[in-house]
Amino acid sequence: MQMNDPALWTARFRAVREHTLALAAPLSDEDCGAQSMPDASPVKWHLAHTTWFFETFILEAMEADFAPFHAAFRVLFNSYYNGVGEKHPRPQRGLLTRPSMAQVRAYRANVDERIAALIGGPLDGATRMRLGGLLTLGLQHEQQHQELILTDVKHLLAQNGLCPEYLDVPLPRLAPAPALAWQRFDGGVAAIGYDGDGFCFDNELPRHRQFIEPFELASRLVTNGEYLAFIEAGGYREAGLWLAEGWDWVCTQGLAHPLYWRRDEAGNWCEFTLAGLQPLDPARPLTHVALFEADAYAHWAGARLPTEAEWEFAAASAGAVPAAPLARTHAGTSAAASPASLAGAGSAAGQDALSVPHPGGAPEEDALQQMFGACWQWTSSSYTPYPGFRPAAGAIGEYNGKFMVNQYVLRGSSCATPAGHARASYRNFFPAGARWQFTGIRLAR
Amino acid sequence: MQMNDPALWTARFRAVREHTLALAAPLSDEDCGAQSMPDASPVKWHLAHTTWFFETFILEAMEADFAPFHAAFRVLFNSYYNGVGEKHPRPQRGLLTRPSMAQVRAYRANVDERIAALIGGPLDGATRMRLGGLLTLGLQHEQQHQELILTDVKHLLAQNGLCPEYLDVPLPRLAPAPALAWQRFDGGVAAIGYDGDGFCFDNELPRHRQFIEPFELASRLVTNGEYLAFIEAGGYREAGLWLAEGWDWVCTQGLAHPLYWRRDEAGNWCEFTLAGLQPLDPARPLTHVALFEADAYAHWAGARLPTEAEWEFAAASAGAVPAAPLARTHAGTSAAASPASLAGAGSAAGQDALSVPHPGGAPEEDALQQMFGACWQWTSSSYTPYPGFRPAAGAIGEYNGKFMVNQYVLRGSSCATPAGHARASYRNFFPAGARWQFTGIRLAR
Amino acid sequence: MQMNDPALWTARFRAVREHTLALAAPLSDEDCGAQSMPDASPVKWHLAHTTWFFETFILEAMEADFAPFHAAFRVLFNSYYNGVGEKHPRPQRGLLTRPSMAQVRAYRANVDERIAALIGGPLDGATRMRLGGLLTLGLQHEQQHQELILTDVKHLLAQNGLCPEYLDVPLPRLAPAPALAWQRFDGGVAAIGYDGDGFCFDNELPRHRQFIEPFELASRLVTNGEYLAFIEAGGYREAGLWLAEGWDWVCTQGLAHPLYWRRDEAGNWCEFTLAGLQPLDPARPLTHVALFEADAYAHWAGARLPTEAEWEFAAASAGAVPAAPLARTHAGTSAAASPASLAGAGSAAGQDALSVPHPGGAPEEDALQQMFGACWQWTSSSYTPYPGFRPAAGAIGEYNGKFMVNQYVLRGSSCATPAGHARASYRNFFPAGARWQFTGIRLAR
Amino acid sequence: MQMNDPALWTARFRAVREHTLALAAPLSDEDCGAQSMPDASPVKWHLAHTTWFFETFILEAMEADFAPFHAAFRVLFNSYYNGVGEKHPRPQRGLLTRPSMAQVRAYRANVDERIAALIGGPLDGATRMRLGGLLTLGLQHEQQHQELILTDVKHLLAQNGLCPEYLDVPLPRLAPAPALAWQRFDGGVAAIGYDGDGFCFDNELPRHRQFIEPFELASRLVTNGEYLAFIEAGGYREAGLWLAEGWDWVCTQGLAHPLYWRRDEAGNWCEFTLAGLQPLDPARPLTHVALFEADAYAHWAGARLPTEAEWEFAAASAGAVPAAPLARTHAGTSAAASPASLAGAGSAAGQDALSVPHPGGAPEEDALQQMFGACWQWTSSSYTPYPGFRPAAGAIGEYNGKFMVNQYVLRGSSCATPAGHARASYRNFFPAGARWQFTGIRLAR
Repeated sequence: MQMNDPALWTARFRAVREHTLALAAPLSDEDCGAQSMPDASPVKWHLAHTTWFFETFILEAMEADFAPFHAAFRVLFNSYYNGVGEKHPRPQRGLLTRPSMAQVRAYRANVDERIAALIGGPLDGATRMRLGGLLTLGLQHEQQHQELILTDVKHLLAQNGLCPEYLDVPLPRLAPAPALAWQRFDGGVAAIGYDGDGFCFDNELPRHRQFIEPFELASRLVTNGEYLAFIEAGGYREAGLWLAEGWDWVCTQGLAHPLYWRRDEAGNWCEFTLAGLQPLDPARPLTHVALFEADAYAHWAGARLPTEAEWEFAAASAGAVPAAPLARTHAGTSAAASPASLAGAGSAAGQDALSVPHPGGAPEEDALQQMFGACWQWTSSSYTPYPGFRPAAGAIGEYNGKFMVNQYVLRGSSCATPAGHARASYRNFFPAGARWQFTGIRLAR
Repeated sequence: MQMNDPALWTARFRAVREHTLALAAPLSDEDCGAQSMPDASPVKWHLAHTTWFFETFILEAMEADFAPFHAAFRVLFNSYYNGVGEKHPRPQRGLLTRPSMAQVRAYRANVDERIAALIGGPLDGATRMRLGGLLTLGLQHEQQHQELILTDVKHLLAQNGLCPEYLDVPLPRLAPAPALAWQRFDGGVAAIGYDGDGFCFDNELPRHRQFIEPFELASRLVTNGEYLAFIEAGGYREAGLWLAEGWDWVCTQGLAHPLYWRRDEAGNWCEFTLAGLQPLDPARPLTHVALFEADAYAHWAGARLPTEAEWEFAAASAGAVPAAPLARTHAGTSAAASPASLAGAGSAAGQDALSVPHPGGAPEEDALQQMFGACWQWTSSSYTPYPGFRPAAGAIGEYNGKFMVNQYVLRGSSCATPAGHARASYRNFFPAGARWQFTGIRLAR
Repeated sequence: MQMNDPALWTARFRAVREHTLALAAPLSDEDCGAQSMPDASPVKWHLAHTTWFFETFILEAMEADFAPFHAAFRVLFNSYYNGVGEKHPRPQRGLLTRPSMAQVRAYRANVDERIAALIGGPLDGATRMRLGGLLTLGLQHEQQHQELILTDVKHLLAQNGLCPEYLDVPLPRLAPAPALAWQRFDGGVAAIGYDGDGFCFDNELPRHRQFIEPFELASRLVTNGEYLAFIEAGGYREAGLWLAEGWDWVCTQGLAHPLYWRRDEAGNWCEFTLAGLQPLDPARPLTHVALFEADAYAHWAGARLPTEAEWEFAAASAGAVPAAPLARTHAGTSAAASPASLAGAGSAAGQDALSVPHPGGAPEEDALQQMFGACWQWTSSSYTPYPGFRPAAGAIGEYNGKFMVNQYVLRGSSCATPAGHARASYRNFFPAGARWQFTGIRLAR
Repeated sequence: MQMNDPALWTARFRAVREHTLALAAPLSDEDCGAQSMPDASPVKWHLAHTTWFFETFILEAMEADFAPFHAAFRVLFNSYYNGVGEKHPRPQRGLLTRPSMAQVRAYRANVDERIAALIGGPLDGATRMRLGGLLTLGLQHEQQHQELILTDVKHLLAQNGLCPEYLDVPLPRLAPAPALAWQRFDGGVAAIGYDGDGFCFDNELPRHRQFIEPFELASRLVTNGEYLAFIEAGGYREAGLWLAEGWDWVCTQGLAHPLYWRRDEAGNWCEFTLAGLQPLDPARPLTHVALFEADAYAHWAGARLPTEAEWEFAAASAGAVPAAPLARTHAGTSAAASPASLAGAGSAAGQDALSVPHPGGAPEEDALQQMFGACWQWTSSSYTPYPGFRPAAGAIGEYNGKFMVNQYVLRGSSCATPAGHARASYRNFFPAGARWQFTGIRLAR
């Protein structure tokens, strides 16, 4: 990735950074401070931590007369980098009422200006190259937190008996999904891992060979309606459908439906969404299920989950690619991201998270649909290093590698994933019981 | 208590209500929303719950065309009254980013106006009598939460690595405490419990007889300096000084000092206060210790904790009474409670919590000092009903009686107790391991 | 207590020690090794710990050429005496498959011979006096563990789906209980605490004065039938009857009946007893309830629990005393305590635990009945030191005093209490949620 | 597997069953009843459960007039088969003092006779075939529990401060291990999974293709001495060496060495073994480490763990096979093997668990050594189904498949694995934090 045009870089940097603020725009300072569980973080913390990332890994390394914006922030906003030093305890991020939102905004502005100055300043070629790499990583990192802002806020608002909306916009009811079709792939020795000259995370490398037996992949995601049939058939009461640890999880927590499903007083199923509580739409892709639920559903449906190699192979074979940024970002959005203007404009930074690519469009019935932009798709693959994997040196090497145990890979992207962030080789990962991400099911067999 | 003068009642009602808001004035909306542990509540929740109390127990019962300010608030701000119905889970009060602080302020204003209208309206004598009783209870309840606002905020700010101040005011260093003296009491058959025609809580009644063996009570509270000597003598490492459950508590939690004591980088003892981190003042009364610590210290000092009957008997014998409201409230305070004006005025709603009555004043050396206004004083008495105790009928009867197990009585009052709230028969109570209240030690033998 | 007749002392010592072994006689080595919960101990551990008590506090102190039976036993069988040193972790007592039961029996025999030699040997008067005191304490201690052997074995067997009996003997069905009557007491300044020249524990001293308001005490214990009415009236579902902590306890643990009550397949209530599963006898005194349940029942019944002073005052006033040892022990029992002979003899060391003094006998209806020998009776009094309480010096002083927090006093004695062990001033104590002891309810008002 | 010769089948059946009893021979009934943690089971439970397996899956299905030995055993000794019905709670297996060991032995004898009668009786061909399959599975299952008996007893005895031995035999000190060499493999498309006509578990099938990149495998296991160097280099204090979850595990549990390593009073390292506490032998293969420790050590050593495919490919390429049964029992070595019966028999059932194949023998330095018979070897592969995996129908299908989440595969076999049980395609599995199995490290790169 080249740094030939500082103006372009600065514009790109500012666009991503402003998009993050736009996501926070519909929220009060109170909303931004709360933490609903140890796995989720306050929005304010996300705003500060992404800034800390640029300050710590770029400014501290490359600014001539570096001085921290605030010495204590190095600890407060370190997420998990042992190489950087101490960390504020994760479950207590919601207690950081200081610094205030105003101070965190000032922190962002300050670091943004210093980064812009760095980009626009005189740099030798090697340094500029290094800066480019770190900036790209920082922006990709920020985009990951953009998605987490939406999932974490959704979880927070869902705890509130008032069922507050993140965005007060209508949630369109979808047309019925087309019948599920099976797409066959022959497999063989396949090349897996990122192949290109753009950005990818270290965990997508090195590209290597895997042997894939012939398999079939479902043409679209499992819908709410299909999953409801599983529930009504007693799926949550039938031990034989579940992994042993999944069954313990169901029994211990008394689970009987996806995370945000509820029944209203009349007994009708509803779903808590970023647009508040809504009647359950059977046509929408099922989301907010754990790997345990995905596996039990697949078992019940006479299928299984795909491996991550199958998913990537199928995506590559079918030429599935995420929608281009232009197709999903709305011109002028970031400039208009105040709550008031959002209503007027009819679009918002966070509004994508309410819409999903519908599979019922024009294409032939056997094509792979909803590979990107609807829900992350659980695979049966645990998150392990590719043969020859080498994390980066130093603290930045803690980004991915150290999480490669007891996590499962998700492929694709979700409605909350920022435009331009995903790709076919992208490896998202969460524990088998995680449900607060936009996670769904694509069957294989 | 008479309701003859509605104007006087309205003024009194407004004064207490405004004092609560004044306590919140130095805090941001973010500060007001966070909950640092299940035992503590967010300031916003205190503001709403005290309002809920008036709405539920007065307006709902006495307003002609009662309609709730917000139907959901009945659940959200119910603390522990099973008789009223469902309750929002206590450990999740900090997740209620909605309603916002602005909405809670509006809630307060609305209920305040309706209460004022009720007071000023036409009422028959019996109803007016009943209203007077409930108003008094509601205001006493609000004053209890005023103290909790300060203790809960202190706990919250103490979790923050930035050591933020609640009030940015100087904390005066006290003159050395006078030598501890022992005041002797002969005991005998004593009348215990509230005796007067003012307000008291149901747990202070009925007045009854107890036999008290002769005893001695310390003339003042234990100081930081004295407790430091206990620490330095290995008090936290000597199992023999502790109750068995206290020793488990010390070992399991790895405790070695009072809740807010810390060492700075140079190894000097500091204390986190509402005025931020301060050097430990050996003359100040020790505070923020659990009953377990109080008992171990007393054991080490060759003494014991008083029973609550001894404390009350001594207070009555010595004529110890809390300072009158006028002596501790500052004219014009509530009108001047914005952070800016606080500095200028040199006084604030919450500033009392920084000052303690110093025992080193004029009085003869054997008089009982610091009975009120410094720290609540642990007694060895578990919290049990007095003979003939009868809680009120209905949900209001849950106020005190149902907590009479595994709690220990504290007597006196603290620097955070609102002026005019305490009295000699007052029974505060907390579990033996509670440390976040302003709790200290008065020895007996 | 005099030591004038060594032969008498030796006989007494051997009788108590043999009674302990007789209690273990119906059990296999496997039964004796298991620990059903941290609060309970294996029978083998009880056998060893009581021996450790004599070895540590008598032999080690008084034997000329003392050497421990096994050096490691000092740690393995220390219960809670920090003054003696390290302790094997309480929850892991059931993992001590070594030493074997045979080795523990050998340990008992060895210590018994050495104690007998000490008693019979030449001692100066002061030493003999001291030996007498320690022997008495050791035997009282052993009797406390005799009761615990029965309660702990009952708890262990109750966990087993086979519902095994401790003793295979018939459990007689009792005649209906007489109507509950109320015995009135005038109270006044009463002397409380042990008064006599026999043995008492340190927690029964010093005798002191308490003022007792007039009260009434129920003539007998609450029966299973009465408690069943409470259950059928929804007692376990009505929050308003319970202490707040008790209600949490009920909800968290999902409780709906006393510890050992069950329903058989036909829905009939049964009770697990030391004679196995038996149909619930409505005439038997209710047992195995927590203080929380006792308090809720009393609340429901329009009464309350007595204080410990009321109980002791009433017992003293009514001249209630435990049945004499001769009336409850069976001549020749301990010699015949093997399981086989038990059946033939029709009596057993542990069989008393199956029988309770029935209140329906001859006496006038208002007399106090079942004060001793049926169930320990919960009082509303927390376990606190009497005024002037002084524990003994050294490790032996840990016997009682350090438990004086968050425990509630029980008075009387149970069917499992060894004959001759209880008295009116005896203070038993357990936490408010304990249910595995033979604990019941006597009402007051 | 043919059932042509019933006498041969009966002999084989009896041999395996007797071996299990022989493993229990050095233990008392008390030893056999205790459970040291929820993951481990009492020996008595293993003896009963393996019998339950034959009774439930063979006798119940095939015996003409089947009646259970004891109706309650169906629940008590069901391990995890939801398809069979209720289960006694796993953490409470140690509370089952009834049935006694004698009853469990009688249960074994009864089932053994009935199985023998079935084998020897008249059966049609299909039934005989089915019986053969189930018998084989039952015996393989029993062998798995033979290993667990040793690992669970070792864990139990390790909790005992007396450090008791399972076998009182000398533990020979090994000659220094040869230098670690790297064996190179070219990889390519490899066939993975069981290939033969003998028995294998369902999780070893179907045989399928995997692509393996070139790799190197260490010639022998990591030794105690090598791991000690890791400890002394600060391995347990360096976050950067650990997986994130592993580091949390180390910190939360305060770990600093393998499970059974200890320091004696002089500070020398010892290891608790089945022969009691022994000085640490630097030449022995390291064992009782978790995957977390294996991964951190590999990281520190500049290597990694192999995948299970690499391990199997290497074993197949090198022709590594477990020692034949005859080669692993040592004539006459059991002279010291405990109780009289073993001595008479001339071999010790459990003694193999004390000996390991030493890598320092004759073979050329680059050969793969200790693939079998020393320690199970952690791989980086999570336990997932092979492509096309199909568990058996019915409850027996719960044997393996439902555990395929959050478990990691171990390959090879250990000193505690019964002779004839392991093979190159065998997939053992445990969670990443398990340490009480005989688990060690073979490096790859």
